[in-house]
Amino acid sequence: MRNIKLTIEYDGTDFAGWQFQPGQRTVQGLLEAKLSSMLEEKISILGSGRTDAGVHAVGQVANFKTSRDIPLRAFEDGLNSLLPHDAAVIKAEEAAEKFHARFDAKSRRYRYQIIFRRSPLKERFAWRMLYKADPAILQYLAAQISGQHDFTSFSSTQAEVNNFICLIEKAGWTFTDDMWTFEIKANRFLHNMVRILVGTMIDMARGQMDHNDFEKILTVKDRTLAGKTAPACGLCLMEVLY
Amino acid sequence: MRNIKLTIEYDGTDFAGWQFQPGQRTVQGLLEAKLSSMLEEKISILGSGRTDAGVHAVGQVANFKTSRDIPLRAFEDGLNSLLPHDAAVIKAEEAAEKFHARFDAKSRRYRYQIIFRRSPLKERFAWRMLYKADPAILQYLAAQISGQHDFTSFSSTQAEVNNFICLIEKAGWTFTDDMWTFEIKANRFLHNMVRILVGTMIDMARGQMDHNDFEKILTVKDRTLAGKTAPACGLCLMEVLY
Repeated sequence: MRNIKLTIEYDGTDFAGWQFQPGQRTVQGLLEAKLSSMLEEKISILGSGRTDAGVHAVGQVANFKTSRDIPLRAFEDGLNSLLPHDAAVIKAEEAAEKFHARFDAKSRRYRYQIIFRRSPLKERFAWRMLYKADPAILQYLAAQISGQHDFTSFSSTQAEVNNFICLIEKAGWTFTDDMWTFEIKANRFLHNMVRILVGTMIDMARGQMDHNDFEKILTVKDRTLAGKTAPACGLCLMEVLY
Repeated sequence: MRNIKLTIEYDGTDFAGWQFQPGQRTVQGLLEAKLSSMLEEKISILGSGRTDAGVHAVGQVANFKTSRDIPLRAFEDGLNSLLPHDAAVIKAEEAAEKFHARFDAKSRRYRYQIIFRRSPLKERFAWRMLYKADPAILQYLAAQISGQHDFTSFSSTQAEVNNFICLIEKAGWTFTDDMWTFEIKANRFLHNMVRILVGTMIDMARGQMDHNDFEKILTVKDRTLAGKTAPACGLCLMEVLY
């Protein structure tokens, strides 16, 4: 059996997320349907992780097994010709037999974009906020996030995991007149973690919460103490590293 | 009468261009309808220039006259609340009584984007080419374009103008792994001029036409000698300067 690794880009706006759900338009469901039809065998795809409804990706990674002896090119151009405008295969590669898109991932990188005015060219991929926040507080909070912490307070209560410890390799904001961007790279992410982190940082940088409480909120491990969950449309999975 | 200057952004994908046409979805038609309904008087809008069907804008400028005494803010937030997701007012300003969005424009700046693979996040705003071209030839041709020339050979034959002389203040390409971008700033542009320039440069940079013929094609003033017209989706009106 061949093990094929795919790098996938999608505009999450019209998807009910990555993971297959019966009767819903999901990226995994779409890819499995098109691959199964192209290869004339039932294909199951394994993603590096779920992305929620409305979240985008330019570097999602997935793998699947097949016995078909067709050139890699068919998983790029061939599959792309079957995919709609909002999903595409960027790259197809032969992977080692044991390669597992989820378990083998060493780190993942996400980006969150914020804009402050209507922008037909950008608003599919950004959270449009009405009021500015304090950039210095955002940058201070990003520095607090760096390193290893228990992120229970910043995880959806639905998360089904054994522990909530993540190692944040990089976290920081960049600011332009048009757009504020948060980038975060970590060994793993919990459900809704980036969106709750961004929502909390913004609440604090607007003075709706005290930024001096951030460390305490981390320590107390209680989701109800963190801020709101930022909208899905601003989030994009940039890269999965192996 | 007040003279209001609007700066407008739109995703051109689903518009039949800027200019009003009966029964078509155009940006001018949409703005006139929403403004007339909001102000309860018939409003005519005057744009800095037409953009074709499928062409985008982040800095289109237009002006209109009104006798209504409502705050400028209403032409931003109020009008935006009536506009669909693919068009927005970025700024509204009081202009001098004689301000004319088209005749007073000193220069305009356009951008043309090219990508080389499927990209759901970028392909609404870029021409997806299947084969690479020679960047050195593109940059050489951009330098040929700079300065004052008669652009008859690079104008749609439908152009209704007295002369075809344009002063190109800036023209150049930038290249990243993901995207090739052509930027051009001039005192005026003829119909389809940027798209024919880009199409011809690409034909030459791929060896389908001889780049040594470029100067001759300019001199001869014959549209049939230039290359193809690049697709509308890659083009964006960035800025109009007064």
